[in-house]
Amino acid sequence: MVEHVRHAKTAQQLRLLSDALDSGRLGPVRRLVNILSPAEIGNLLESLPAAKRNIVWGLVDPEDDGEVLVHVGEDVRESLIAEMDQDEIIAAVEDLDLDDLADLIDDLPDTVIDEVLKSMDRDHRERLEQALSYPEDSAGRLMNTDVVTVRADVTIDVVLRYLRLRGELPDHTDYLYVVSRRNQYMGRISVSDLLTKDPATPVNELIDDEQPGIPLDTPDNEVATQFSDHDWISAPVVDANNTLLGRITIDDVVDIIRAQAEHQALSAVGLDEDEDLFSPVPRAAKRRALWLGINLATAFLASWVIGRFEATLQQIVPLAILMPIVASMGGVAATQTLTLMVRGIALGQVGVGNLRALFNKETLVGLINGAAWAVVVGVIAGLWFEPLIGVVIAAAMMINLVVAALSGVAVPLLLKRMDIDPALAGGVVVTTVTDVMGFLAFLGLGSWILVGNAA
Amino acid sequence: MVEHVRHAKTAQQLRLLSDALDSGRLGPVRRLVNILSPAEIGNLLESLPAAKRNIVWGLVDPEDDGEVLVHVGEDVRESLIAEMDQDEIIAAVEDLDLDDLADLIDDLPDTVIDEVLKSMDRDHRERLEQALSYPEDSAGRLMNTDVVTVRADVTIDVVLRYLRLRGELPDHTDYLYVVSRRNQYMGRISVSDLLTKDPATPVNELIDDEQPGIPLDTPDNEVATQFSDHDWISAPVVDANNTLLGRITIDDVVDIIRAQAEHQALSAVGLDEDEDLFSPVPRAAKRRALWLGINLATAFLASWVIGRFEATLQQIVPLAILMPIVASMGGVAATQTLTLMVRGIALGQVGVGNLRALFNKETLVGLINGAAWAVVVGVIAGLWFEPLIGVVIAAAMMINLVVAALSGVAVPLLLKRMDIDPALAGGVVVTTVTDVMGFLAFLGLGSWILVGNAA
Repeated sequence: MVEHVRHAKTAQQLRLLSDALDSGRLGPVRRLVNILSPAEIGNLLESLPAAKRNIVWGLVDPEDDGEVLVHVGEDVRESLIAEMDQDEIIAAVEDLDLDDLADLIDDLPDTVIDEVLKSMDRDHRERLEQALSYPEDSAGRLMNTDVVTVRADVTIDVVLRYLRLRGELPDHTDYLYVVSRRNQYMGRISVSDLLTKDPATPVNELIDDEQPGIPLDTPDNEVATQFSDHDWISAPVVDANNTLLGRITIDDVVDIIRAQAEHQALSAVGLDEDEDLFSPVPRAAKRRALWLGINLATAFLASWVIGRFEATLQQIVPLAILMPIVASMGGVAATQTLTLMVRGIALGQVGVGNLRALFNKETLVGLINGAAWAVVVGVIAGLWFEPLIGVVIAAAMMINLVVAALSGVAVPLLLKRMDIDPALAGGVVVTTVTDVMGFLAFLGLGSWILVGNAA
Repeated sequence: MVEHVRHAKTAQQLRLLSDALDSGRLGPVRRLVNILSPAEIGNLLESLPAAKRNIVWGLVDPEDDGEVLVHVGEDVRESLIAEMDQDEIIAAVEDLDLDDLADLIDDLPDTVIDEVLKSMDRDHRERLEQALSYPEDSAGRLMNTDVVTVRADVTIDVVLRYLRLRGELPDHTDYLYVVSRRNQYMGRISVSDLLTKDPATPVNELIDDEQPGIPLDTPDNEVATQFSDHDWISAPVVDANNTLLGRITIDDVVDIIRAQAEHQALSAVGLDEDEDLFSPVPRAAKRRALWLGINLATAFLASWVIGRFEATLQQIVPLAILMPIVASMGGVAATQTLTLMVRGIALGQVGVGNLRALFNKETLVGLINGAAWAVVVGVIAGLWFEPLIGVVIAAAMMINLVVAALSGVAVPLLLKRMDIDPALAGGVVVTTVTDVMGFLAFLGLGSWILVGNAA
């Protein structure tokens, strides 16, 4: 429901734009594009095939070029940069915020990077180089250095006079940071207090130490969790000596949260979050090929298991007809448990303290659903072929749903211990387990009960 | 990498807590719990099995009870409320923000709802009833009514004096809203301007009309997109006459974005975002049963297709051994395309303007990967059994990967047109298509080429 409205709105813009593009009248296209925010333009460009994308890109107000580049995935970004000449790129990026520029710079051609660095004043360049020295996906990379600091020993009135002299505040300033003479972070004072308290009040009466400084090397995921756990708008970043170095703001955190969500959804099917709707075909094919290849290996493994029962299958063809059911039900049950586990692990909700309880609960759920669906499948298969086949498939189903529950809990934990992202690899591993177990249990029981010769 | 740190931190807390709980010394547990923010306590409670959860819940500072209830999933929330007596519940919820209370109230026992309503002053009650009259998941439900408004014809100095009289500002106030005499939204003035501009400046010189009011009935998804496209911290909500009714803030938007992400990940496997690690077993089993049942129906459909080729399978057992490979590769390829499409649709990037280009691109990717893996599979199967079987599986693979691409694009579009969430149902439908097509193509070609009798 909800998605439709968003879709309807943008789809309508897309259609208008597409019509205008097809008609070749670029004036209306330009007008349609330039009422959008940079993020919206980025979204639009991602939705266009390469030829149209390049036309629209040429019509974007050059002032927005840099911000748009920040807001698109890497594949689209590369294609857009390829359309620009060196001067355009430099003009686009030189006014970006430090964190955005640091994020972008690796995607620029080397010659352009040199020119961009040369075009900056020394101070700005040094700060960029500093930012680039921090690990990617760390608080150091996320922060900007546009921090307004005050001293604890002045009154609000002094702060207000200083702010009027200074002129406007950086975006998303909800707190000023109070620092010592040596620029050590001591606490914060809210803009709300500056506006509502008696101007004669000294800053040190209003200072609030509820928010500790975020260490430079904090992973961005952790930064995002802290922001959303504490409803922060901005947070100070400090080095090991508690020196205030910069500030992270909620807009960047929202981008991280969105990127995390995309990562989880896309990596579950072996895709990359830089992949977009119109990534170049060779690149898209190559990216997906790896995942298909891994899946092929696991599929051959399952086939090899089936092959062990060649003689049985020859005698009892219904086993071949029914065997995908057992495997597929196991795969679904395992993926359900896995998905809950991946979320729980990401939220830090899974640990030694609750593992046994988790295993118990999932096994019980597997037993209940295994029993329920075993009866249904058993009856249908029994009526379709013969009662004894119903018994075999019911037993196999029961076994496979319990295996599914156990592997759904165990596999993500093992992967994590092996430093492999469970969101990425979990699905392949658990479905391989349930495929193999499903075929093994069903064909093994079938050989034993129906033919009397175990493989 | 990144998740480990978060995990390590919370897992460590979990372990400490778990040890303390096991030892029965509740003092340390209480201290460990009450240094956490309500969101963190919520996260912790979700990670505990019911018995321990209830003990910890009893130790939470009653002042935080309401906020904690807001931050947990519905299953856990119910279990926590069941542990409280009526007075505790009323005390916990009566100080909540209007939007949080509106969000929570449906989960309270009826008798408590009456008591809560009675305990409120009339004004507050009326505003709550008003909030509840808006559709769930709409801007009206998200907003709070704690808005600071100013008039356009005064100076900053007057505003500052008013604010000092008023006392503190609501959380996340980055703009004050300028309204007409009849409370119609005219624009906004930034807190930054209030702090940095000459106090003699009249408000109407600083008013900014860049942010239109959000209509009451805007879906929350759309609200979230606007916030992240425009980097807003807060936004005014208006009715059809442009009367200012309230304000939405970024903290609630972050919650929506997180919930959307969870919804996408969980609904893809038929789960509910209210499901948590320790949902009661009967409820968890029941929720997952539906999805297993749907999958069972599609699995029987695939088996029925296989059953059409009973005679062929009897003659050529290798077909039974290899057939899961074709189906499984198709399923993987289709799910990859589907996942990209679901993301594109959610972002509004898919419309009539680019459908043909999308089909072309995905088909091409399918052809390339189909050809590449057809060769690999064909050679392996040919060597394993006989060359002609290699030819059959290669052809079937080629066909199924193209079908996978087409259904990966078409299915989410069709589902959307039928008002069914593609994130929820897409996976089942596309894998059913590729299972059926995979078995049909492989066994059909096998019957024709190897046996000479089509089914």
